[in-house]
Amino acid sequence: MKQSLDTIARQIQALDQAAVEAAGRHLDQLTKPPGSLGKLEHIAKQLAGITGQTIPELGKKAVIVMAGDHGVCEEGISAFPAEVTPQMVLNFLNGGAAVNVLARQTGADVVCVDIGVNAELEHPQLVARKVRKGTRNMMREAAMTEREALDAIHVGIRLVEELVREGCGLFATGEMGIGNTTASSALLVVLTGTEAADAVGRGTGIDSDKLLHKQSVIERAIAVNKPDPSNPIDVLAKLGGLEIAGLTGVILGAALHRRPVVIDGFISSAAALVASRIAPQSASYMIASHLSQERGHARLLEAIGISPMLSMDMRLGEGTGAVLAFPLIEASVNVMKEMATFASAGVSQSGPDGL
Amino acid sequence: MKQSLDTIARQIQALDQAAVEAAGRHLDQLTKPPGSLGKLEHIAKQLAGITGQTIPELGKKAVIVMAGDHGVCEEGISAFPAEVTPQMVLNFLNGGAAVNVLARQTGADVVCVDIGVNAELEHPQLVARKVRKGTRNMMREAAMTEREALDAIHVGIRLVEELVREGCGLFATGEMGIGNTTASSALLVVLTGTEAADAVGRGTGIDSDKLLHKQSVIERAIAVNKPDPSNPIDVLAKLGGLEIAGLTGVILGAALHRRPVVIDGFISSAAALVASRIAPQSASYMIASHLSQERGHARLLEAIGISPMLSMDMRLGEGTGAVLAFPLIEASVNVMKEMATFASAGVSQSGPDGL
Repeated sequence: MKQSLDTIARQIQALDQAAVEAAGRHLDQLTKPPGSLGKLEHIAKQLAGITGQTIPELGKKAVIVMAGDHGVCEEGISAFPAEVTPQMVLNFLNGGAAVNVLARQTGADVVCVDIGVNAELEHPQLVARKVRKGTRNMMREAAMTEREALDAIHVGIRLVEELVREGCGLFATGEMGIGNTTASSALLVVLTGTEAADAVGRGTGIDSDKLLHKQSVIERAIAVNKPDPSNPIDVLAKLGGLEIAGLTGVILGAALHRRPVVIDGFISSAAALVASRIAPQSASYMIASHLSQERGHARLLEAIGISPMLSMDMRLGEGTGAVLAFPLIEASVNVMKEMATFASAGVSQSGPDGL
Repeated sequence: MKQSLDTIARQIQALDQAAVEAAGRHLDQLTKPPGSLGKLEHIAKQLAGITGQTIPELGKKAVIVMAGDHGVCEEGISAFPAEVTPQMVLNFLNGGAAVNVLARQTGADVVCVDIGVNAELEHPQLVARKVRKGTRNMMREAAMTEREALDAIHVGIRLVEELVREGCGLFATGEMGIGNTTASSALLVVLTGTEAADAVGRGTGIDSDKLLHKQSVIERAIAVNKPDPSNPIDVLAKLGGLEIAGLTGVILGAALHRRPVVIDGFISSAAALVASRIAPQSASYMIASHLSQERGHARLLEAIGISPMLSMDMRLGEGTGAVLAFPLIEASVNVMKEMATFASAGVSQSGPDGL
C-alpha cells in the first residue's frame, strides 16, 4: 500500500550523532593534521551518521537516470529538438552516453527509467514506469496534476526501495529531458524568490535571444499557474517535470532507507530542493557533486545548504557530475579503513594545541 | 652526462596543435552538446597535444613524493616538530599515509624520495637521492647553494626519465617536509610580488600569533637573502626546499618527455611556478588538481595559469589532491575512447547553430 508523502517525510530521521562523533574521533587519530582532509573528512562523518556505522560498507552503486519530456518545448526554449529525449534514452540503454562511460569507470550501474518520455520505448534494460507521455505546456496550464506529480515521486521512492533490496548503498541522481532546465529554473524562481534573470541559463547551448525568450516563458508560466511557494508539491506539479518529480522521490527514498545520495547538476539540484522542502531532514542524506556551468546552480545548492566538490565547468546532466564524485566518496571510506594512526605509525602529533 | 638546465628548458616543446585539433573534432561528434563536458574536454585536448595521440594511452601512474627538511624550522614556524618528516617518510613507505590509501584506490604507485631529509633513512622501497640533510635556515643565510638547488632539480628530471622508461605516463607531484609552507610562501612573495600577509597560511594548523611570526620570518628571509625575482634558480636556492627543487625537476622532466603531470596543492604549485619560470612551455604539461585551503594557493595557480578541478578544503599535501584527480584524467580519456557519436547512436544534433 502506498504511504502518504507526509508519512514518508516524517519517517526520515536525523543522522546518528553517536556514529558521527565516533567517526570524528577515529579521523583525529589518523596520521594527518586534524581536519586536513577537508570534505573527505566531512563526508566520512556524514556517511557514519547516515548508515549508523563508524566505517560504512556502502555496497553497490547506482546512478538513476530519469527521463521525461516537457510540453513547454512547444515554445522553442531548447537548442535541441524534443525527439532527442527518446534517442538519448536508447543511447543510455546501449551504453554509449557520457554517463555510461563514467559509470563503467567507477563500477556503478546505470538505471535508466522512462518516467515520462513522449514516445513508445522498448528495451530489455529499460525500467518502464511511465506516468504520462511528457508534461503539459506549463506556459498554458499546469505541467502535471498533483496526482501525477505524486505518482512520479512514488516511482522514485519505490525504485530506491527495490535497489536497496538488491544491495545498492550509494545512489546518484541523473536525468534526461529536453526542456528540463526551463522547468528547473522555474522551480528555482518560485521556491527561493530568485529573479528569473538570475535563474535562467543557456541549457544545452541557446543564444542570447533565446535566453531572453526562455526567461519570458518562465515568467509567463509562473503568472499563469500561480504556484504556492509554501507548497512544494503544488510548485513541482505546476512547473516541474516528471523526471524531476521522480528524482525528488529517489532522494526521499534514499533518505528514508538511510542511504547517501549524490546530487548531480542543475536539474537534479532542483529536485533536491523540492525534496528538502517536503522533508527538510532529507538534506542530511545528500552529497553535492559538482558546480555546473548552468546559471543558478550555485543558488540551488545554497538554498539546500550543500557544497560541491568538483568545478569541472560541466553542463551535461545525465548524472555525469554525480558519477565523477563516486571515487571521492569511496576515498573518504578508504581513509577511514586504511590509514595508519599516530600511535601505530610512530608519528609525533602536533605541538601544545594538538596533544 | 648532465645537460644544463637551459638546454633542457629549450628542449621542452609546445603542444602538438594538430593532435589538439583532431581531439576537438572527435569530441564534437560525441553525443553531448559541444563543450558540455567542460574541463574533461579541455584535458582530453591537452593530453592529445602532450602525447601527440588523439586518444592517448597513458600507461602507469605514479605520484612522486619528495621529502626534505627545512632549516627554518629552528624559528618555530610549524605546528609539528621537524622529526615528523622522517616519521612520515616511513609511514609512506609502509603504506599507511593518506596518499598511499588514495593511490591504492586509483592504481597508482607511490614513489617516495629522500632528497633532503635530516635523518638517516633506510627502507627497501625508499628512493635514496639525498642532496643534503635539510636546507639551511633561510632567515640567516641562503637555504641552498645554487649547485644544491640544481642538483635537486636534476634528481627530479632523472627520476621521471627512469619512470618513463618503466612505462609510466601520468605523473603527480607530492611532498613531505615540516616547514615547507613557509618556503613556498616565500617563493610566492618573491616570484609574484604578492604581499607576505596574503601569501602566508596556517600550514598544518598554527594559531594566529604563530601566523604573524611566520610572516615576519619570511619577510626577514627575503631581506637577508635579496633574491633576484627575475632569476628563478636564485629565488629557489635562497628560499626554497630540496623537495620543492626536486618537484620542479619532476615537472620539467615530465614536460621534456611529453608526459602530463598533475600538480597537487600549495607546495607543489610553488614548485610548478618555479618550473614555469625556468621553462614557460612546461605549464602546458601541467594539470591542476585541487584548490587547497592554504592561503595563497589560488594566487600560485593564477600565476601559472592553470585552473583546479577539485574544491575539497584539503591542506595535507603529500600529493593527496593530485591523486584524487587521476580518475578525472582517466575519465577524459575514456570519454574519447568509449562515447557514441551522434551518427552511431542515431541522435539528432542541435538546431541551426549546432548543425
